[in-house]
Amino acid sequence: MWLMKDSPSLLTDLYELTMAQVYFQKKMHNAAYFEVSIRRLPDNWGFFVMTGLNEIESYLNEFRFTEGDVDYLRSTKLFSEDFLRYLSDLKPEVKIRALPEGTVFFPNELVLEVSGPLICAQLLESYILNILGFSIIQASLAARVVIAANGVAVVDFGLRRTQGPMAAVRSARAAQMAGFLATSNVFAAGKLDFNCTGTMAHSFIEVHDTEEQSFRSFAEMYGENAILLVDTYDSFEGIKKAASLAKELYEQKGIRIKGIRIDSGDLAYYSKAARQILDEARFPEVKILASSDLDEWIIESLRDQGAPIDIWCVGTRLMTSYQTPALGVVYKLVAAGENENGMAPKIKISQNPHKVTNPGVKKIVRFYNGNGKMSGDLLAHVDEPLPAGQPVKAHHPMYDYMKKTYQEPYTAEELMVPVFAQGKPVYQTPPLHEVRQRAIGQIERLEPEYKRFFHAHIYKVSLSDKVQQIKKDLLSYHQEKAGSNP
Amino acid sequence: MWLMKDSPSLLTDLYELTMAQVYFQKKMHNAAYFEVSIRRLPDNWGFFVMTGLNEIESYLNEFRFTEGDVDYLRSTKLFSEDFLRYLSDLKPEVKIRALPEGTVFFPNELVLEVSGPLICAQLLESYILNILGFSIIQASLAARVVIAANGVAVVDFGLRRTQGPMAAVRSARAAQMAGFLATSNVFAAGKLDFNCTGTMAHSFIEVHDTEEQSFRSFAEMYGENAILLVDTYDSFEGIKKAASLAKELYEQKGIRIKGIRIDSGDLAYYSKAARQILDEARFPEVKILASSDLDEWIIESLRDQGAPIDIWCVGTRLMTSYQTPALGVVYKLVAAGENENGMAPKIKISQNPHKVTNPGVKKIVRFYNGNGKMSGDLLAHVDEPLPAGQPVKAHHPMYDYMKKTYQEPYTAEELMVPVFAQGKPVYQTPPLHEVRQRAIGQIERLEPEYKRFFHAHIYKVSLSDKVQQIKKDLLSYHQEKAGSNP
Repeated sequence: MWLMKDSPSLLTDLYELTMAQVYFQKKMHNAAYFEVSIRRLPDNWGFFVMTGLNEIESYLNEFRFTEGDVDYLRSTKLFSEDFLRYLSDLKPEVKIRALPEGTVFFPNELVLEVSGPLICAQLLESYILNILGFSIIQASLAARVVIAANGVAVVDFGLRRTQGPMAAVRSARAAQMAGFLATSNVFAAGKLDFNCTGTMAHSFIEVHDTEEQSFRSFAEMYGENAILLVDTYDSFEGIKKAASLAKELYEQKGIRIKGIRIDSGDLAYYSKAARQILDEARFPEVKILASSDLDEWIIESLRDQGAPIDIWCVGTRLMTSYQTPALGVVYKLVAAGENENGMAPKIKISQNPHKVTNPGVKKIVRFYNGNGKMSGDLLAHVDEPLPAGQPVKAHHPMYDYMKKTYQEPYTAEELMVPVFAQGKPVYQTPPLHEVRQRAIGQIERLEPEYKRFFHAHIYKVSLSDKVQQIKKDLLSYHQEKAGSNP
Repeated sequence: MWLMKDSPSLLTDLYELTMAQVYFQKKMHNAAYFEVSIRRLPDNWGFFVMTGLNEIESYLNEFRFTEGDVDYLRSTKLFSEDFLRYLSDLKPEVKIRALPEGTVFFPNELVLEVSGPLICAQLLESYILNILGFSIIQASLAARVVIAANGVAVVDFGLRRTQGPMAAVRSARAAQMAGFLATSNVFAAGKLDFNCTGTMAHSFIEVHDTEEQSFRSFAEMYGENAILLVDTYDSFEGIKKAASLAKELYEQKGIRIKGIRIDSGDLAYYSKAARQILDEARFPEVKILASSDLDEWIIESLRDQGAPIDIWCVGTRLMTSYQTPALGVVYKLVAAGENENGMAPKIKISQNPHKVTNPGVKKIVRFYNGNGKMSGDLLAHVDEPLPAGQPVKAHHPMYDYMKKTYQEPYTAEELMVPVFAQGKPVYQTPPLHEVRQRAIGQIERLEPEYKRFFHAHIYKVSLSDKVQQIKKDLLSYHQEKAGSNP
């Protein structure tokens, strides 16, 4: 295991440093605005949930080039002594605005904006993308799982499947935020002040002479916390043994075991059989836990089939983001200070219209309808006032002919908040129970069409008049320039 | 970012600890043998590559329950003071055998075996599975990419997409092992003594007044290390500008730039166009780099189309294991000491025959044919002698009627090596260049059919007479026991 004994500053792509050296040598210290956004939703998804600011804060607090870092960079023979000295003194004097933890958002919106001296703002790219990408996948996916469970408890069993053990701590945090009940990851539970839970492994049954004996030892020790794994040899027999042990323990010692876990076979079939056996033994309160490659689709389907499952144990498919292991999170320049008159908006053009960026320093205005549900977001220029009652024109980011107008009654809210300024954090990541409240509250304000697991409806993210005009002007400018080339 | 300031021991699933407490209370200190194996290959894969022992070694060296760990466990109210005291003193006095780093292997083989006192061997499960799962995916996938590139250089650009930045260091190591040329991850390059490489970002071009100016500044600074990104505004124009700058720099200053990178559009089309433009400008040595969601299939296809790409830059699809984000790595009990007569083999039965384990303490015997190519592996009992010339019967692990016999000429080799014994490492992970040599050498000894990217041929992993007999006996035993239940 590699530990980060000193600074995280070298956890970056080499090009950030080689580009920075050019900026340094050419004295390009003007301000730049970089915007993090996600190009599109994974198939069938309807929304994202924001998280990761806690780690970005720690990163900035620890960001510095140590002597060891500089020694390594020197050894690559790519960097001048002047530049290395500059790096040694460099502090992350940037400004960051971002969506608050737990905010629901959509593709092409700015998730986080880093502004400040070009070099510094550039150097933070790789790490910030790394943290936000995985954190956002996990929070969004966990929220989908919670929606699928529809009020039934979900726990996180994914530690053994992540890209290293610390990734599992990120996953557990995202799961907690999205509304999970507990994690099996002891370290995560400790660090995050979260419930810790677990059952037993098949090996536990195998090392005992009989399944009965293993169940008995465990139940006698853990009593009302005991959850028995019933499918080591034969699920039916396992369930019956658990039921008769539950009965015996209750009658003889007054102990009521907590539940049984089914980890294989058809979960609808076995959970119904288990419920019947347990109910007939008069243990309707003994819970049925199910595990085995669960995801939101399987949970929804099992629920529709009436599977009487009381706790969903979710691991691999959530923690490794099985259906969508990466998001197209990008860090794009949207404005740079070229002259004393202020910022010039910047654009990245592509043959693929989805990859054309929305230029300029922006904010996100969210509209709510009369029922308090989200009705659309507007990428407005940072200087534009928050709409208050008057009709607001909204342009599709790519197709000119698609426009809409927000009319009264609506309320409008600005989403981005300051996170870091002048080298200091100005946003304190709220305690997780607050973030959880925000996330759950936001998801409640989302119409059900956006929360479907198949072909979720597309939420409207539009450009304001001003942002659309800036984009059009820049596209024409670059087209003309390209056309006028020899 | 969470740092592991003390021990990694709580990075485990709660059930490891609750089971351990039962073993402790019941004085179940006999030896147990746990086997790590992978149930099946991801679709279209033909082999795995072993790695991760380096991190397992560190884990065992750091494994202990600190005072803080014990305090946290106490707070869960699940554990007795006796047991907590026992944990405080616990050392990982286990024996580990494993496939050496860089070994090619197949499903259902033992990858690593942990034996020792039941409690200790059980407690290591979650962490070991976590490390091996991701490490093996990465090494195996990187090997596939190297095979696809067929001798052309591949570099790792994946830092921004992994589950946290340290996962990217694991990926970079696996890539180096599989034969990559370099990584963009500066920290990984430093830690792993690996080549560091990079190009430039679109933002670099955008902050300059013109694309020419950005190319010029970069090329003047980095000369023969300079790689120019040509697709910010218009790929054709970008390539032409790079070619004319290359010409000018060479004619005026004798500098030959290293290459150009194409990051979007049709890579076959643009790479051919770029090659033609560069060749016409008499720069046949200026390299063409390609990036943009590359994987082994796309690389093979582009190669088949004659795309003249000199360096493949691989990121997301490799680093996040996009096609197969998790392997079914399991940690199963194969034997336990129940009496003085030694170890009793153990089995996990399942309605799914693929999930039935192969019981007993085993070794892997690999057969090579007369041409030195791998011809099959045999799971033999650890006491069985290494075959030397005589015919060897081999049984399919599930289907009785499928047998084969290894006949002369063959050579047979035993694969597992001791890694950890009596609380001390006995295997020193070799330097990466040696592991790389081994991995590449092993892949050369694999027939091409196993290296295909579609429907790779199934390599035969069989059971020896003795292991098959043990499995049959245990299956009958449990069937009879289940049948005899009231």
